[in-house]
Amino acid sequence: MQKEKKQVRIGMIGYKFMGKAHSHAYRDVPFYFDTNVEPVMQAICGRNEEAVKNAAQKMGWNSYETDWRKLIARDDIDLIDIVTPNNLHSEIAIAAAKAGKHVFCEKPLAITLEESKEMLKAAEENNVLHVINHNYRFTPAMQWAKKIIDEGKLGKIYHVRAKYLQDWLMDPDSPMVWRLSKEVSGSGAHGDLAAHSIDLARFLAGEFKEVCGILETFIKERPMTKECTSDETSGKVDVDDASLFLARFESGAVGTFEATRFAGGNRNGNRIELNGEKGSIRWNMEKMNELEVYLHEDEPGLQGFRSIHCTEDVHPYAGNYWPPGHIIGYEHTFINLIADMLNAIDNRDKMEPNFEDGVRNQAVLAAVAESSETKAWVSIEDLID
Amino acid sequence: MQKEKKQVRIGMIGYKFMGKAHSHAYRDVPFYFDTNVEPVMQAICGRNEEAVKNAAQKMGWNSYETDWRKLIARDDIDLIDIVTPNNLHSEIAIAAAKAGKHVFCEKPLAITLEESKEMLKAAEENNVLHVINHNYRFTPAMQWAKKIIDEGKLGKIYHVRAKYLQDWLMDPDSPMVWRLSKEVSGSGAHGDLAAHSIDLARFLAGEFKEVCGILETFIKERPMTKECTSDETSGKVDVDDASLFLARFESGAVGTFEATRFAGGNRNGNRIELNGEKGSIRWNMEKMNELEVYLHEDEPGLQGFRSIHCTEDVHPYAGNYWPPGHIIGYEHTFINLIADMLNAIDNRDKMEPNFEDGVRNQAVLAAVAESSETKAWVSIEDLID
Amino acid sequence: MQKEKKQVRIGMIGYKFMGKAHSHAYRDVPFYFDTNVEPVMQAICGRNEEAVKNAAQKMGWNSYETDWRKLIARDDIDLIDIVTPNNLHSEIAIAAAKAGKHVFCEKPLAITLEESKEMLKAAEENNVLHVINHNYRFTPAMQWAKKIIDEGKLGKIYHVRAKYLQDWLMDPDSPMVWRLSKEVSGSGAHGDLAAHSIDLARFLAGEFKEVCGILETFIKERPMTKECTSDETSGKVDVDDASLFLARFESGAVGTFEATRFAGGNRNGNRIELNGEKGSIRWNMEKMNELEVYLHEDEPGLQGFRSIHCTEDVHPYAGNYWPPGHIIGYEHTFINLIADMLNAIDNRDKMEPNFEDGVRNQAVLAAVAESSETKAWVSIEDLID
Amino acid sequence: MQKEKKQVRIGMIGYKFMGKAHSHAYRDVPFYFDTNVEPVMQAICGRNEEAVKNAAQKMGWNSYETDWRKLIARDDIDLIDIVTPNNLHSEIAIAAAKAGKHVFCEKPLAITLEESKEMLKAAEENNVLHVINHNYRFTPAMQWAKKIIDEGKLGKIYHVRAKYLQDWLMDPDSPMVWRLSKEVSGSGAHGDLAAHSIDLARFLAGEFKEVCGILETFIKERPMTKECTSDETSGKVDVDDASLFLARFESGAVGTFEATRFAGGNRNGNRIELNGEKGSIRWNMEKMNELEVYLHEDEPGLQGFRSIHCTEDVHPYAGNYWPPGHIIGYEHTFINLIADMLNAIDNRDKMEPNFEDGVRNQAVLAAVAESSETKAWVSIEDLID
Repeated sequence: MQKEKKQVRIGMIGYKFMGKAHSHAYRDVPFYFDTNVEPVMQAICGRNEEAVKNAAQKMGWNSYETDWRKLIARDDIDLIDIVTPNNLHSEIAIAAAKAGKHVFCEKPLAITLEESKEMLKAAEENNVLHVINHNYRFTPAMQWAKKIIDEGKLGKIYHVRAKYLQDWLMDPDSPMVWRLSKEVSGSGAHGDLAAHSIDLARFLAGEFKEVCGILETFIKERPMTKECTSDETSGKVDVDDASLFLARFESGAVGTFEATRFAGGNRNGNRIELNGEKGSIRWNMEKMNELEVYLHEDEPGLQGFRSIHCTEDVHPYAGNYWPPGHIIGYEHTFINLIADMLNAIDNRDKMEPNFEDGVRNQAVLAAVAESSETKAWVSIEDLID
Repeated sequence: MQKEKKQVRIGMIGYKFMGKAHSHAYRDVPFYFDTNVEPVMQAICGRNEEAVKNAAQKMGWNSYETDWRKLIARDDIDLIDIVTPNNLHSEIAIAAAKAGKHVFCEKPLAITLEESKEMLKAAEENNVLHVINHNYRFTPAMQWAKKIIDEGKLGKIYHVRAKYLQDWLMDPDSPMVWRLSKEVSGSGAHGDLAAHSIDLARFLAGEFKEVCGILETFIKERPMTKECTSDETSGKVDVDDASLFLARFESGAVGTFEATRFAGGNRNGNRIELNGEKGSIRWNMEKMNELEVYLHEDEPGLQGFRSIHCTEDVHPYAGNYWPPGHIIGYEHTFINLIADMLNAIDNRDKMEPNFEDGVRNQAVLAAVAESSETKAWVSIEDLID
Repeated sequence: MQKEKKQVRIGMIGYKFMGKAHSHAYRDVPFYFDTNVEPVMQAICGRNEEAVKNAAQKMGWNSYETDWRKLIARDDIDLIDIVTPNNLHSEIAIAAAKAGKHVFCEKPLAITLEESKEMLKAAEENNVLHVINHNYRFTPAMQWAKKIIDEGKLGKIYHVRAKYLQDWLMDPDSPMVWRLSKEVSGSGAHGDLAAHSIDLARFLAGEFKEVCGILETFIKERPMTKECTSDETSGKVDVDDASLFLARFESGAVGTFEATRFAGGNRNGNRIELNGEKGSIRWNMEKMNELEVYLHEDEPGLQGFRSIHCTEDVHPYAGNYWPPGHIIGYEHTFINLIADMLNAIDNRDKMEPNFEDGVRNQAVLAAVAESSETKAWVSIEDLID
Repeated sequence: MQKEKKQVRIGMIGYKFMGKAHSHAYRDVPFYFDTNVEPVMQAICGRNEEAVKNAAQKMGWNSYETDWRKLIARDDIDLIDIVTPNNLHSEIAIAAAKAGKHVFCEKPLAITLEESKEMLKAAEENNVLHVINHNYRFTPAMQWAKKIIDEGKLGKIYHVRAKYLQDWLMDPDSPMVWRLSKEVSGSGAHGDLAAHSIDLARFLAGEFKEVCGILETFIKERPMTKECTSDETSGKVDVDDASLFLARFESGAVGTFEATRFAGGNRNGNRIELNGEKGSIRWNMEKMNELEVYLHEDEPGLQGFRSIHCTEDVHPYAGNYWPPGHIIGYEHTFINLIADMLNAIDNRDKMEPNFEDGVRNQAVLAAVAESSETKAWVSIEDLID
């Protein structure tokens, strides 16, 4: 009974937490969005055959591969979706682009700024669509915030205040995992969490000019788990537990940023506040459907932050789901992004956030890391050019 | 690549708001839950062929019917899912049960208490699984609340305080719809919203003993829309806009209840509070992932409502989704309920809430309606027996 | 250095919790308000000489008496302030009025409706100022709410939802006190707490038409303390622990009311919500400086409850205190009320809330109590006339 | 009727906003606290005779002076209270100490670190009590936080996150005032607001080690008011509108700090969060009675921030006021501090925060200002020694 739609055949590399989130979104996007292009869950790829086979079956992929190069080489794949650990992003993305596949890559784009620039170059030279998964932009609340900022409702922005607070690592007995290895992850909370805050800040307040910050590791040794191949009983944590920095923006705004895995009671506290000459917004991913807005032009005596439930038709994406007041969750950020990506493929458009956004984000990450070493302010422009 | 699983083939009657929510849940449940039984979206039914055909395609149903009796007669259907307007529930459910199909019915179970009793009788006599969709029970927060109450953490319950506040009807120019016709809906906010509050109260605090209340209609005439078949330019609203009642419970607890479509600023404010001899809980569906808990045994000076983000593995259903702090939404209440329903089919168990819950709920609804007429307290037991 | 101001010489009867609150307010009012009339703390009265002497010294009263009749007889007293247990209000107030003294009386006005009517009659016949201390009206937030309702910002009111939740009695071992004796208090949570909710509802939404409710006692026996004169080891609680009722207002609005001393975690949760055809308000005394306001005319997408910090010059009384954002507390409600009372004395005006408000409040209390006995709705008008 | 108490005779210099807050506290402290020493409001001092005379009368001072040197010279003054603009603090405080008077000084202690050190030296050499008015420490919530941190309930502190957000200056047409002149104020938001955050951080998390920050002025010209003596129509703002900095603490904790007068919707948003190895706290002066506490040792599934209403007897100072749930306000921070100061005088104790705290605070302020110039990290210890 299916009417003919154009299809984009997905090949996804990796299948853990992000693999689950992406897979679910491919399944759900045609239900909620009436795109001209539909995703086909063609193949999934992982090194452990038993595990990837099970994942394919569980999540609804048509086939699997154990070698990502083979996946990229397949004719029946149009888009490569990269959800591997960070150190594999660049090699895979560049190979995919050279093979003429569209590329959808998890954040942070790469381990180093240099790698990220090569990824962008490869994608542009091969004229493929390139997208980075900064999914938090795709909450109705953040899209709505962008819209009212663009309309001038907040006026010129003075302050950006972004915190990404988690607490899963606060127990000193929590074991070593790949996210704690610099070789595999590049960084800790910095690339994992601050990257998201940087993206939201760029989305809402424009480009960074310079930064000064510190990367801090509170617990420097952690117990090894059995799965670790090493004989050691404990491992050295060589990534940051927390990232803190100050920023100046091109627009003249100033910002404070903080990302940590040691903020007890904050399970996923991705918060951002902006203060402008005419108003303010506040948002917290833990209450992602709510946007707080202050408008200074409100009648005297009736000024105060409004708590807006961004679940109405007027709020971006929200009309695709449920009636007002019926909330959506974390997974819908992926569905919304992928709906846009399918439309971009259909229209042969660029879309944001793309690898250029990834490079600019990586430049800020790199600048903070450099600043943490040199204890000096670092200009972003110098790194981008 | 699919391993063999048992299947239950669904036939769904109706395809609007609830049809969308149920359809989505059938699609998603195998992704999140590892049930032995998998749902097959076999057929959908509606009177308008063009519309039902489109709905089937959009939502992923294998076939469609335009006559619900034909659907029930099909051999390839194991379970009938009823998402029609309320006045059709009983006839369809009874026919389905007699045909040996499991029945999953939207709330309120029927227009009248008598009908609801007949539905229960038919389901029991034909030995089919019967389930009523009080989906709000299936938030992790409400399931967790039930668990801590059953463990005695709140002690004996003194107070139930339940409000279901919406505001979509507060505009006097909002037109007539089927939900405003007594013939089709049975009641207004009462059966639509108070039914949910009654279910949560029964779930958490046990059976009602007696009630006293009022049903109120603020706007008694509304404009007709073009779709209305009548020649009239305005229609008479003969259902309640708001339902308010007091209750005594079998346990000795007392309660206040309120449901309305005229509470500006409350898009879907399904709130409940319980106070017991050892503690309290507070919850609001608009922030459904959060449960507030007060424990009187907490150390002096450190007593206060805890805001618990029910997104951890320890919270019911939450472990099937995302890491702590990553919220789920309205649609997941349906997925959770259906996962339980599939397991009940697999285990040939009863499940709750079922048609007996539906009858008991309907008895409370009927008692309040009677009380609104007689201006007297009405005993529930007298209606049930 | 004092410039000549008119003075009103206060004689206060009682000196416990309310005595402390009133005394403090008399001390503070000249500091914050520039009234033409200044209060003089002339005399305080209590039966226990040692205790009243100490209280006078501690709180700054110029003299003391041990017989309230003597206090009333004194020439140097202009206003009698009654903060005794409820059963003494009427006799004292009537005697004071007959002696030509202004009367300021704690709530509830009396033990019975009949008594309260006699108090009003005595005050009117003797042409003295009569004031009842419903202090919660005198928060800037509630005064501001009144103002925006009077301006029509909420339109016609549909719903009143008032709860007064405390928890100091939830421990079954909490001993007998005078507030738990019907002879002394008249009622429990009903007269103590519901009376406040009734006053706020009347203030904001107008007169009650009819009510239906229940008074409930959860713990019927409590241990006696040594101070009790009885030989019994436990005492019978003959007042309500909780009061719940429904109401219809003259305006057509409907309301739910609940007052309890058994709502764990709510230390002083005096909450009220109103929903009107154009907007809503929400307020909670525990966060008394904040008023939440929803305006339906706000731009689509920007609708939501505003959290207004009522600490600006535009908010009633707030300009007498501190800059915006610097909160005031419980005691300031007394200061504000007394400032108004001094102005009323200066201007020979009536002021609200007065004994007529007390009578109307008492009528609602009496109607609910009667309803709890008869299990029927009770008309207020029948009781007033 | 007054029993004999020891007295401390106060001479206060200045009488605007802070003068009002101090004066009120002197009036109220004997009412709430049973100290052995009572304050006598002996004399107030200001240059404008008419204004200071009126202030004395309005606020209840026994006499007035127009020359602060005369005030200090008076025999009937025991304590000098300095509430002048910041540039006068050091000269007055040093003169007062040399005259053997106790000194109570507003924050920031001085314009420069050097001055503040001289003030400390003078106070110590003359053996007088010296106190700096960091009043926010004296909320029950912050004192309670200190207590639970000292008991180890949060464990080792990892993060301090302090923001002091105001918005009174966001209007570009808001005129020049003394607080915007560097000569008079020393700095803008930095000394006015960040000084408070620094004090709370020191109080709760110990000494600062090094800082890096920026001071930013968004609006550099403002209109002159008629009161300005200058002929210019606009004035140059030479103080910061906002102060942002990162910090490392001696303990190993890291912190982000931000103070601004441009955060729309935040009237007095003095917020602080701490995350430790065992728990977290959150607090906001706008809701000063509430302390949020997260304890990681709470039972799984019941972990979450508790909202504690710090109005119980167990909470510091709260027992002196009202029953649980009845809030206090901004002015009570002054009353609490002064009660402690009177006890310190009685016991010939030191008290905190004193001029040493003032010096350490000033050192952090100076370090941030230096860092803003040099764009480098600045060590606190180097400045203190």
